[in-house]
Amino acid sequence: MFEAAKVGRKVNKADFKTQVPELRTELLSVQRELRNSNTPVIVIVSGVEAAGKGEVVNRLNEWLDTRGLQTHAYWGESDEERERPRYWRFWRSLPPRGEIAIMFGSWYMAPLNDRVRNRTSDAELDDELNRIAAFERMLTEDGALVVKFWFHMSEKEQRKRLKQLKRNDRSRWRMAPKLSKLTEHYQHFESIAERLIRLTDTGIAPWYQIEATDRRYRDLTVGRTLLESIRTRLNSPSALRAEDISHAPSPPLSEEAQITVLDRVDLRRKLDRESYKSELKLLQGELNELAWKAYSRGKSSILVFEGVDAGGKGGAIRRITQCVDARLYRTIPVAAPTDEEKAQHYLWRFWRHIPRAGRVTIYDRSWYGRVLVERVEGFASDEEWRRAYAEINDFEEQLVGGGAILLKFWLHIDQDQQLHRFKQREETPYKKHKITEEDWRNREKWESYKTAVNEMVIRTSTEYAPWTLIPGNDKLHARINVLETVCDRLRSALQDKES
Amino acid sequence: MFEAAKVGRKVNKADFKTQVPELRTELLSVQRELRNSNTPVIVIVSGVEAAGKGEVVNRLNEWLDTRGLQTHAYWGESDEERERPRYWRFWRSLPPRGEIAIMFGSWYMAPLNDRVRNRTSDAELDDELNRIAAFERMLTEDGALVVKFWFHMSEKEQRKRLKQLKRNDRSRWRMAPKLSKLTEHYQHFESIAERLIRLTDTGIAPWYQIEATDRRYRDLTVGRTLLESIRTRLNSPSALRAEDISHAPSPPLSEEAQITVLDRVDLRRKLDRESYKSELKLLQGELNELAWKAYSRGKSSILVFEGVDAGGKGGAIRRITQCVDARLYRTIPVAAPTDEEKAQHYLWRFWRHIPRAGRVTIYDRSWYGRVLVERVEGFASDEEWRRAYAEINDFEEQLVGGGAILLKFWLHIDQDQQLHRFKQREETPYKKHKITEEDWRNREKWESYKTAVNEMVIRTSTEYAPWTLIPGNDKLHARINVLETVCDRLRSALQDKES
Repeated sequence: MFEAAKVGRKVNKADFKTQVPELRTELLSVQRELRNSNTPVIVIVSGVEAAGKGEVVNRLNEWLDTRGLQTHAYWGESDEERERPRYWRFWRSLPPRGEIAIMFGSWYMAPLNDRVRNRTSDAELDDELNRIAAFERMLTEDGALVVKFWFHMSEKEQRKRLKQLKRNDRSRWRMAPKLSKLTEHYQHFESIAERLIRLTDTGIAPWYQIEATDRRYRDLTVGRTLLESIRTRLNSPSALRAEDISHAPSPPLSEEAQITVLDRVDLRRKLDRESYKSELKLLQGELNELAWKAYSRGKSSILVFEGVDAGGKGGAIRRITQCVDARLYRTIPVAAPTDEEKAQHYLWRFWRHIPRAGRVTIYDRSWYGRVLVERVEGFASDEEWRRAYAEINDFEEQLVGGGAILLKFWLHIDQDQQLHRFKQREETPYKKHKITEEDWRNREKWESYKTAVNEMVIRTSTEYAPWTLIPGNDKLHARINVLETVCDRLRSALQDKES
Repeated sequence: MFEAAKVGRKVNKADFKTQVPELRTELLSVQRELRNSNTPVIVIVSGVEAAGKGEVVNRLNEWLDTRGLQTHAYWGESDEERERPRYWRFWRSLPPRGEIAIMFGSWYMAPLNDRVRNRTSDAELDDELNRIAAFERMLTEDGALVVKFWFHMSEKEQRKRLKQLKRNDRSRWRMAPKLSKLTEHYQHFESIAERLIRLTDTGIAPWYQIEATDRRYRDLTVGRTLLESIRTRLNSPSALRAEDISHAPSPPLSEEAQITVLDRVDLRRKLDRESYKSELKLLQGELNELAWKAYSRGKSSILVFEGVDAGGKGGAIRRITQCVDARLYRTIPVAAPTDEEKAQHYLWRFWRHIPRAGRVTIYDRSWYGRVLVERVEGFASDEEWRRAYAEINDFEEQLVGGGAILLKFWLHIDQDQQLHRFKQREETPYKKHKITEEDWRNREKWESYKTAVNEMVIRTSTEYAPWTLIPGNDKLHARINVLETVCDRLRSALQDKES
């Protein structure tokens, strides 16, 4: 695969000197255009040891305007990163629309190193590469441009470079954090790199192999490739979007199929006030202890609340926050995104609140807005909400894979009960603010919401993150049902660790 | 001082039960009103051990709407916090306007504990308390409401509580992170607490001493005090603002006084291209090494660039970024604030980019906008820019105190030179975008800017963070001048540590 990167391409000094000024001017001009676009640009810099990745990045920083350009080196994880799912550190460094981020190694670094050092198997590497391909696809479909550079050179050339680097005192600093011994396994490394490129060289986020032997050739080629990639994207912004999104059909419209999972929710369930009181006390006592236990074990929890308007989300959440120590949880009410959030992929604003080890984040509405209100109201395009199911499943798999406990609640009530509660709210002075014109409008779209909820539950109720449908007509029963579910999950998750 | 907190106030169960619902309704209503206001609310919870601070905070979380409410416990610092100035962790948890943050211990915790454990002297404690008073004043003047609760009880009562807590197995968790031995030194602790309250009990951010013996009395009193504080503020939003801001006079307008520090900048200085080239090479080589050395020593740098339009900021910055490894620095161009930034004190958006240990942040324009463009254009009120000098000095003292190297450059040119460069820009295709109507407008305000710059330099050129005025008419000389200054400062800062 890498033959083309070992043919000995060169650019002489004079040519370099004449070509650079023009390239720079064009890069700056395209960067200015980019600023007013919807496209974030992610430049990935990877390759064999001693290929001068650092030099290339510094060159790009020299050629481009560093305003609107960020460079990220993923050296040691901070503890705030270590205590969250692995990709959190990448999400927090994604560029906003209109800007460029250069990522050293990026998400490829750990899988590559782990495989080279035989800490993982081929199958595990493949798994990881598939995850990466999905991640890049997701970013691209959202409008990002992902440009990936792989720097390569022959074994002989690499040996020569490494020797030079060792001799040169100053470059000890340059090779930060430290000079590894990868070259001893050139063949081994190359075969793994080939696998890596093969599995992640997709149409939407292709790898550009760059021969790194001659510095001038290397830098010019990178500059031109980046220039052309951005230019092409700006000229046909939608060319790479929505091209072959899986149009999995919505559930068929036969009469039988009209029966949704929601129709199976037994809304007649009730609880009398006496039982409620005693169960509430017991469960809240237990949850208080479980939350502290989870804290001491570094186990984080993510609770998601969705539901029909006036379905009782707030009340259910309050029964949890009443008993969990306020130092351990945080409630995130999901309202309109801020402009910093709007400049990112829609999952970004949820990623930023993912709790550290041992803490709890409660989402009052969540990323499911994409396939609920945004779908029904048309705020998201067909492609956007259709591909969201897979994106969400992937996101949640990462949360759970990172060790978090994830619980998702749908609080359901029927239309009569909703009407009853709406009216009640309008009549109670301190509840009046909770009911707006919009609530009444949403009510008219009951059937559309029902279809959306049904599809959401079917598609995102995974083994690792199942939905819990809560019958909400009786508030007391609903609250106990939620608390019980939370306690059960925490209890069993914390028991596992003891055994 | 604490006699009033030991008189044995009580509220019986029945009274509590009747009073709570009304209080809650009022709290929720005032919280809703708050949401549409410009006021962020900071609630500080502090006091003697075993006074039930955690219980109170949980109670407030129960009574208030947890949407728009955040609770912060300052347990162990993360490494990302440890590597920045101490107050960074508080800045990052400040609530946006319209929301409430409850802070356990907050900025009082460390000074108090350090003094109790005799790690610091009275004088050091006083220093720290003065800093706190200034910090709270700054937040308040910006519109924040700071409500501080001190929970107190008699020694006898405290002993009783601590014994109960030890017996009660579950409360071992409650007393997270661990039960300290402060009670053994009740007298000692109390006398330090008295000093603390005395020095920070200001009119704009008063302490409320709460007798903590009876839980019901304690919670009701806290709830009511908070309610009244917010209500009072919402009814007279400006009452606490700008009341006695120091109106230090601007420099007098005598003819002699018209000569500003800028007139002393020798704009005739020049450098020939040959000397420029050789010096540039030497200095850039040195700076590259110094930056890596600073990285390895965990020494961070903050470079601030301000200057006349077309003064050459961009070119000077580029000569630095050309030689510092891109993994080590970040350039922050200061443009319009995002809405998340607008919801905070104006310094917040600069605090968020303060570098970690060993990194470099380059601010292309900075917090000085407050006393330059915002002053001249009237974007900031008179009170706002006048008090900014002290705020900025304090901010910079914290940066330097936290171990950072801080360099501030003013790039100066005269009006003829500016005109020349404006015209040049208009004539050069790829520089055309750099010149706008606004630049021409600003030019007309040359004298106002000059006055503002003069006052800025005089008032904020401190021993720990002096301004460097760079004569900019000759670009080559200016760039070398900047590089030299940066190298000198880094070199001497890194030498100190070796000796």
